Amino acid sequence: MRRGVAGAWRKLSEFAVSAWEFGRADRRKVVFGAKVGLALTIISLLVFVKGPFQDLNRYSVWAILTVVVVFEFSVGATLSKGFNRGLGTLFAGGLALGIAELSTLFGNGEEVIIIISIFLAGFFSSFLKLYPTMKMYEYGFRVFLITFCFILVSGYRTRQFIETAVNRFFLIVLGASISLAVNVCIYPIWAGEDLHNLVAKNFAGVAKSLEGCVSGYLQCVEYERVPSKILTYQASDDPLYSGYRAAVESTSQEESLMSFAIWEPPHGRYRMMNYPWKNYVKVSGALRHCAFMVMALHGCILAEIQAPPERRQVFSAELQRVGTEGAKVLRELGDRVKNTMKLSAGDILSEVHEAAEELQKKIDRRSYLLVNSECWEIGKRPVGMEDTLTSLNSMEEDGNYLPIKSRSEAVLDLRYVQVPRSWDVHDSSTGFSSSYIAEDSANNMLQKQITWPVRRSFNADAVTPNEESRTYESASALSLATFSSLLIEFVARLQNLVDSFVELSDAARFREPVDELAVDGHLLG
Amino acid sequence: MRRGVAGAWRKLSEFAVSAWEFGRADRRKVVFGAKVGLALTIISLLVFVKGPFQDLNRYSVWAILTVVVVFEFSVGATLSKGFNRGLGTLFAGGLALGIAELSTLFGNGEEVIIIISIFLAGFFSSFLKLYPTMKMYEYGFRVFLITFCFILVSGYRTRQFIETAVNRFFLIVLGASISLAVNVCIYPIWAGEDLHNLVAKNFAGVAKSLEGCVSGYLQCVEYERVPSKILTYQASDDPLYSGYRAAVESTSQEESLMSFAIWEPPHGRYRMMNYPWKNYVKVSGALRHCAFMVMALHGCILAEIQAPPERRQVFSAELQRVGTEGAKVLRELGDRVKNTMKLSAGDILSEVHEAAEELQKKIDRRSYLLVNSECWEIGKRPVGMEDTLTSLNSMEEDGNYLPIKSRSEAVLDLRYVQVPRSWDVHDSSTGFSSSYIAEDSANNMLQKQITWPVRRSFNADAVTPNEESRTYESASALSLATFSSLLIEFVARLQNLVDSFVELSDAARFREPVDELAVDGHLLG
Repeated sequence: MRRGVAGAWRKLSEFAVSAWEFGRADRRKVVFGAKVGLALTIISLLVFVKGPFQDLNRYSVWAILTVVVVFEFSVGATLSKGFNRGLGTLFAGGLALGIAELSTLFGNGEEVIIIISIFLAGFFSSFLKLYPTMKMYEYGFRVFLITFCFILVSGYRTRQFIETAVNRFFLIVLGASISLAVNVCIYPIWAGEDLHNLVAKNFAGVAKSLEGCVSGYLQCVEYERVPSKILTYQASDDPLYSGYRAAVESTSQEESLMSFAIWEPPHGRYRMMNYPWKNYVKVSGALRHCAFMVMALHGCILAEIQAPPERRQVFSAELQRVGTEGAKVLRELGDRVKNTMKLSAGDILSEVHEAAEELQKKIDRRSYLLVNSECWEIGKRPVGMEDTLTSLNSMEEDGNYLPIKSRSEAVLDLRYVQVPRSWDVHDSSTGFSSSYIAEDSANNMLQKQITWPVRRSFNADAVTPNEESRTYESASALSLATFSSLLIEFVARLQNLVDSFVELSDAARFREPVDELAVDGHLLG
Repeated sequence: MRRGVAGAWRKLSEFAVSAWEFGRADRRKVVFGAKVGLALTIISLLVFVKGPFQDLNRYSVWAILTVVVVFEFSVGATLSKGFNRGLGTLFAGGLALGIAELSTLFGNGEEVIIIISIFLAGFFSSFLKLYPTMKMYEYGFRVFLITFCFILVSGYRTRQFIETAVNRFFLIVLGASISLAVNVCIYPIWAGEDLHNLVAKNFAGVAKSLEGCVSGYLQCVEYERVPSKILTYQASDDPLYSGYRAAVESTSQEESLMSFAIWEPPHGRYRMMNYPWKNYVKVSGALRHCAFMVMALHGCILAEIQAPPERRQVFSAELQRVGTEGAKVLRELGDRVKNTMKLSAGDILSEVHEAAEELQKKIDRRSYLLVNSECWEIGKRPVGMEDTLTSLNSMEEDGNYLPIKSRSEAVLDLRYVQVPRSWDVHDSSTGFSSSYIAEDSANNMLQKQITWPVRRSFNADAVTPNEESRTYESASALSLATFSSLLIEFVARLQNLVDSFVELSDAARFREPVDELAVDGHLLG
C-alpha cells in the first residue's frame, strides 16, 4: 500500500519535472496557460461576483463556454474560431426566431414544426460540413446547430425566444471579446510567425541531411540493419533521416498555420495587408521537391548493394563539394527567409552549379568506373585500367585534365587479352567487394530487412557463384552512378527553389540586402 | 436587382446540384446527416416536449450540446470523444464540489478562493493539454475546464453545487448514450473500415504510378513544362503524380483513423479484441517507402536531362517487365489486404525478382550504353560499337548471350583510332540528341522551370559548344542508369513490404487463401 503510494508519488513528481522542462523549453506555452486563466478570471469577475451584468448571470455559462472554446494558442486561430462562432450564432439566432414565430401560428402543431426543423437543421448542417469547400467552417456549423436547438428548446419552455437569443449572443460576444483582448494584448503568439520559423527550420533540416548523406556516403557509412522505423516511414532520431523527414512531413502543419495566419492583422515584421502567407507554403513545397532528392540519396546509403569504397574515393572531392555547396545554398536561403531579406546581387547558385559541373566532367572522364566491362558483348575494356586507377586518383588532385596523355598510357591491344579478369580494384579471390558486403550483411540482418532479389533467384537457377558476384559488381558500381546523378538532379531542382524564394521575397517585400562589408565598416568606425 | 437575385439563385441551385452529387458519391455522408438529425430529435422529444425528464429541462441544453459535439462521423471518433467528455466532466465535478465545500469554510474569502481556483484550473489544463503525450486528451481538458468553471459559477449563484453537478453529468451521459446508440445501431460508419480501405487504395495508386512511370519513360513522355504544382508538391491531377502522392500524403489521415479505430468494438471482419490496426499503418509505411522510389522514378521523367530514346529502347523489354511485375505484386498485395486474405504458398516476389535480375544482367552486358566513352582518360572504347548497336538490339530478342562472339566482332585495335568520334547513335552534327532536347525545352519553358546548371556555367566559362554537348550526352546516358537502378531498388524494397504484410496478416488472422482451382472445380461440379 505504502509502496503503491510512493510509486505514484514518484511518477507524479517525474511528470512534474518533465512538465517543468517542457515549459522551460517553450515559454510561450506557459504564457498561454496563464492567459487562459486570466481570461476566465475576468469573465468570472464580470459576470458573477459583483459585476455590471448581474441580471445576465443566469446565462453566464455561455461566456465561460465561449472563452474555453475560442481561446486558442495563436491569435489567428482565436480570430478564426471567434468569427465562426459569431457567424454561426447569428445565423442560427435569426433562423430559430423565424421558425419560432412561424410555429406559434400553427397552434397545436407547434411541437411538430419544432421537431421537424431540429431534424432538418441537424441533417443539413452535418451533411454540409463534410462538403470539401465547407470544411473550414466546420466549427461554425456546429455552433449553428447548438444555438438553433438551444433557442428553440429553451424558448419553447420559457416563451422568451428573443430574450434567450439576444442574451446568448451578447454573452458570446462578451466572451469572445475578452478572449481576443487578452490573447492579442498580452504576449501575442502569432501563427504567421510560427509558419515563418517552420519554413526556415525546414531549410536547415534539409541542409543537414544533405551534408550528412554526402559525407556518410563517402565515409561508406552502412546501416548494420536499417531501423524499421525508416522502412515504415515513422519518426526516428536518425540524424540523416529526421532532417528531411521533418521537411516532408510538415505539409499539414503548414496548411493549418497558414489558414490561421491569414486571419491575423498586420503586425511586427508582417506590416502589410494580405501578407503573402501562401508563398511561404509554396517555398516550403519547392524545398520539399528538393528534399525528395535528398531522400533518394539517403536511399543509396540504405540500399544493400553498395559501391566499393575505392570507387567512391575517386569522386570524393567532387561529390563532397557539391554536397557542401548545396547545403550552403539551402542555409543561405533559410537565413534569408528567417531574416526576411532579399537575395544579394549575383547568382546564389553559381558555386553549386560549378561544383555540379565539375562532378559531371569528372564522371565523364571516369564513367568506366561506373560500369562493369566484364560482360560486354561488344568487347572488353583495355587491361591495365585497374593498375592506373589508384595512380590516376592521386594524379587527379591537381585538377588537370590530360586526355591525350592518359589515353596513351592505357591503350593496349585487346587482342592479347586471354583470361577474363575481374575489373575491380580488389583481389576478387578474397571476395572483398560489394558482393562480399551484401552476403555479409544478409547474414547479420533481421528478417525485416531488404534482401537483394537477384541473389535468391540466382540460387534457384544454380548459376556459378562467379557470375553471381559479377552481377553484384556491376550493380554496385551503378549505385555510385545513381548517387551522383541524383545529386546533380538535386542541384537542378535548386533553381525552382530559388525562383519560389524570389517570388516570396518580392510579394512579401523583404528588405534589400545590406552590403555586409559596409555594415562591418560602420561597426568598426 | 432582379439580375442579382437571378445570379444568386443560379449559384444556389448550382451548389445544390453539386451537393446532391456529393451525397450520391458517398451515401454515408447523407446517412450521417440523417443520424445527427435523428439523435437531436430524440433528445428534444425526451427532454422538452412531453418526456419523462420534464424537471430536467432547465438543463436540457447540456444534452443537446453533448449530442452536437460528440456525434462524429465514425463510431470510433464518437466513442473517443464521449469518453473524453465523460472523464473530463467527472474529474471536474469532483474537484469543483471539493473546492466549493472548501470555499464555504472561508466565509468572506469564498469569492477569492473561487477566483483563484478558476485561474489555476485554466492555467494547468491549458498548459498540460499542449504536453505531447496529453494531446489525445485535448478535448477532455476542455470539457474539464468548462464543467469546472460552470459548476463553481453557477453553484455560487444558486447555492446548489451538487444538484448542478449531478444534473449536468446526467444530461451529458444521456446525450452521449443517445448519440452512441444512434451512431452504432443505425448504419454504423467504422473508422477501422476506412483505414482498411485507405491502405488498400494506396496500393492501387502506387501500382498505377509505377506502371505509368515505366511506360511513360519508355515512350519518352516529356513535360512541356513541369506543372508548378508538382514542383511545389501540391495536389495535382497528373495521373503519374497523384497515385504516389496520395500514398505519401496519407500519413496524418491514417494516424487519426487509427486513433479512432482502436476505440471501436470488434465488428464485421474485425472480430477480435485488440485488432492490430497499428499494423495497417505499418504496412502503409512500408508501401510509402516503396512509393518514394516511384517518386524518384517520376523525378527521372521530370528531369531536364533525358536519356536518348534509342538507348531506352535497348532496355525497353526488361524495364517494362520489371514495371509490370512490380505493379502486379503491389496490386496482388492490395487485393489481399482488401479481402483480408493471407498470401498463397510460394514466393509472390519470384517473378519480379526474376525480371529485375534480367534487367540487371542486361545492364551488365550493355553498360557501355550508360556511359560516354568520349572523354575517358585511360582510352577510347572500341570503335564499331555504334554500328553494332542496332543490330545487337534485334539480336538480343532471342535472349542468347554470346560474349565470345560479340567480343570478337568488336575488338579493334584502339591505336588506329584517329578522330574522336561521338559515340551516339545519332548524327552528332544534326544535334538531335539529348543536348538538343535540353536546349529546346529551355526555350519553351517558363521561368518557373528547372534550368540545367551546367549549361549556364559553361557559357560563362566560354568553352566550346562541342564540349558542352558532350557533357550533356554523358549526363543523359547516366539518366538511364539512374532510372534502372532506382527501379531495381524499388524491387529490393518490396521484400520489406511483403514482410510487413505477412506480419499484418498473421496478427490480424487473415483468412487462409482459397485454392483458386479448387474453387473453380467446386463451382463447376
